[in-house]
Amino acid sequence: MQTPWEYRYANRTQRMGSSVIRELLKLTEQPDIISFAGGLPAPEVFPVKKFQQACNKVLETEAAQALQYSTTEGYRPLRELIAERIARYAVDVTPENILITSGSQQALDFIGRVFINQGDHVVVESPTYLGALQAWNAYGAQYVSVPSDENGMDTDELEQALRVGPKFIYVLPNFQNPSGTTLSLERRKKLVELADQYGVPIVEDDPYGQLRFEGDHLPSVVSLDSEYRGDDGCYTGNVIYLSTFSKLLAPGIRLAWVIAPEQVIRKLVQSKQAADLNTAAFNQMVAYEVSRDGFLDEHVKLIRATYKERRDVMLEMMEEMFPSEVRWTHPLGGMFLWGILPEDMDAAEVLKVAIERKVAFVPGESFHPNGGGKNTMRINFSYSKPDMIREGVTRLGKVLKEQVAKKR
Amino acid sequence: MQTPWEYRYANRTQRMGSSVIRELLKLTEQPDIISFAGGLPAPEVFPVKKFQQACNKVLETEAAQALQYSTTEGYRPLRELIAERIARYAVDVTPENILITSGSQQALDFIGRVFINQGDHVVVESPTYLGALQAWNAYGAQYVSVPSDENGMDTDELEQALRVGPKFIYVLPNFQNPSGTTLSLERRKKLVELADQYGVPIVEDDPYGQLRFEGDHLPSVVSLDSEYRGDDGCYTGNVIYLSTFSKLLAPGIRLAWVIAPEQVIRKLVQSKQAADLNTAAFNQMVAYEVSRDGFLDEHVKLIRATYKERRDVMLEMMEEMFPSEVRWTHPLGGMFLWGILPEDMDAAEVLKVAIERKVAFVPGESFHPNGGGKNTMRINFSYSKPDMIREGVTRLGKVLKEQVAKKR
Repeated sequence: MQTPWEYRYANRTQRMGSSVIRELLKLTEQPDIISFAGGLPAPEVFPVKKFQQACNKVLETEAAQALQYSTTEGYRPLRELIAERIARYAVDVTPENILITSGSQQALDFIGRVFINQGDHVVVESPTYLGALQAWNAYGAQYVSVPSDENGMDTDELEQALRVGPKFIYVLPNFQNPSGTTLSLERRKKLVELADQYGVPIVEDDPYGQLRFEGDHLPSVVSLDSEYRGDDGCYTGNVIYLSTFSKLLAPGIRLAWVIAPEQVIRKLVQSKQAADLNTAAFNQMVAYEVSRDGFLDEHVKLIRATYKERRDVMLEMMEEMFPSEVRWTHPLGGMFLWGILPEDMDAAEVLKVAIERKVAFVPGESFHPNGGGKNTMRINFSYSKPDMIREGVTRLGKVLKEQVAKKR
Repeated sequence: MQTPWEYRYANRTQRMGSSVIRELLKLTEQPDIISFAGGLPAPEVFPVKKFQQACNKVLETEAAQALQYSTTEGYRPLRELIAERIARYAVDVTPENILITSGSQQALDFIGRVFINQGDHVVVESPTYLGALQAWNAYGAQYVSVPSDENGMDTDELEQALRVGPKFIYVLPNFQNPSGTTLSLERRKKLVELADQYGVPIVEDDPYGQLRFEGDHLPSVVSLDSEYRGDDGCYTGNVIYLSTFSKLLAPGIRLAWVIAPEQVIRKLVQSKQAADLNTAAFNQMVAYEVSRDGFLDEHVKLIRATYKERRDVMLEMMEEMFPSEVRWTHPLGGMFLWGILPEDMDAAEVLKVAIERKVAFVPGESFHPNGGGKNTMRINFSYSKPDMIREGVTRLGKVLKEQVAKKR
């Protein structure tokens, strides 16, 4: 039955399709499917006891503040804690350079709201993070795709893309979602230089930067930009940097942060006022209690060890079970790897069979805003326990062997 | 110093001014000011012990779910609880008619996102809720103001406004923010009929409906619409209904809900996917634990008694201290009342003097999207304890007497 609302939807909603990932996540609700489709952290590493202590402390000592409306910018001690950590591994900032958001998805939405007019171009890696495309589609963004390889976005191709006059460049330099690749130091530097040369800013999305299993930490794009400009004190540069507590503590508290020049933060704060007033004070105070006194640094070691084991098991099993025609990335951290099937294969077709065999992944096509990638697949290794990974890769390997054989 | 971002802001941001209320809330941070400016619930009625028990229970028994990503629609048991309550005092709905949002502000934002194109008209009461204007300004809304009096929106004037072809009508029928007035039953019925006749839907914002101090509960607009249509079972009508836990439990958990035809909910869910994926599962599960087993019904009695006392003290003191030239509303519930100064007075000017005398309110002009209301003021009675209300109204009364005298 038609509702009186039906013919009143705004034009922009036509560009907001339902998320492929969301629909697929519904499959993970079937308990007998081993799902490598989601992007979920391992619940085994949630610091539950710490959360419990923190909730009790906050409610016993600061309930009137924790349960009340609060400032749009975010809980100041939490912003100070973030500033202190960021100074250690990236760039000098003050709490005025930081906005707390309800997950990084909200930060992506606000960036769209503040910067994207209908028809504006955004430069993205291909493949890129689907959530960013969803956020910016709502504001009428168009995308210029820059191909990427094992070393991330191909900065030789970037220059061509910058000639289109894009609003900004979007990049996930560490253990990218979906591909698992890492932008090389050389390319990071080139990216900063090209962006400056063409006067195009950068949005650096870094949810997994702390989750490196091997090799040295590479300087973030924001810190290279700060160096390049010779920033002295507070950051006023060319990069908006995003990161999140979802991968460090737990996604169920919905807490992330944006780092940007103060003036940009003020614009994002205006967006947040209109969008949801403020992020839950209670959650911010609890996250602060959990994170303080060095707990975050200790805890992140546990996450790294857990995910490294799972990645190792997955790579080992893939080596054993996958047909030789399939290739995949070897991520140095994060939560995902990327499978590449022979050119003439369709990962969506493979998924249909895989689901019958009770294993799931995400076909890679939807991560390509301008088409392509039909033969690619995103595979998550953070969520399933090692035994499940062994069984799931075994199932998937059989499906892939059959499907590859069919094509020959 | 200019940042590289500066010349890249999207057009829409030009319409997002910083919130007058937000700026004024900063005044309340000065501890010696008695502020009637904010819209804060009384922290004395936050059910802190219940929250503590609920946090412990959720983290002890369901941490893996509570701390994980969750569905965009919201935690199902919480939606079931809301459906059951709403059926008692408004309309029959299922969980599929309900979306959980991060505060009602987020629901207002999504309504803007889904329905408002640049230049679309929205019919509002004058004065109306500032947060709605802020949310919809970002999407380029224009407003058709319908005057209101002690009985709410003047439905005789509404018909004229509907001839403009607005996208929807926005109304706060119970103890309106800012005016404290209640839409009469007769006008509610007229509103439903006119909306149907002109084919214009209604957004009913009802944060305070449960906080009635006296008189009988009036049927909500959504229930009258359902009756009018002879709905049989699930709601498919002409109204989007909003309410919130912010005024029933605490605003610091950021939980509200939307009730709408299922098809509209699906559109709003798409907005939420792009905007922030999901509201914190932890908060929803805690709110469910706090609310279940009839606690909400018991607790709301405490809130009503607390706010009624504060309203009574405020009205009594105003009667005693305010000059006879000033008029004010007598709200039957909620958190605000509305002061009306002589036509030639400017409430913003009064506020400047009031702040010097350590008392604050919100000048009413910003609640009027098309101008006017310079001589009006919003006064909150829920936040300050009775003694503070006595002292604050005494201070404000002196300022008003002086300012009125100056004009004579």
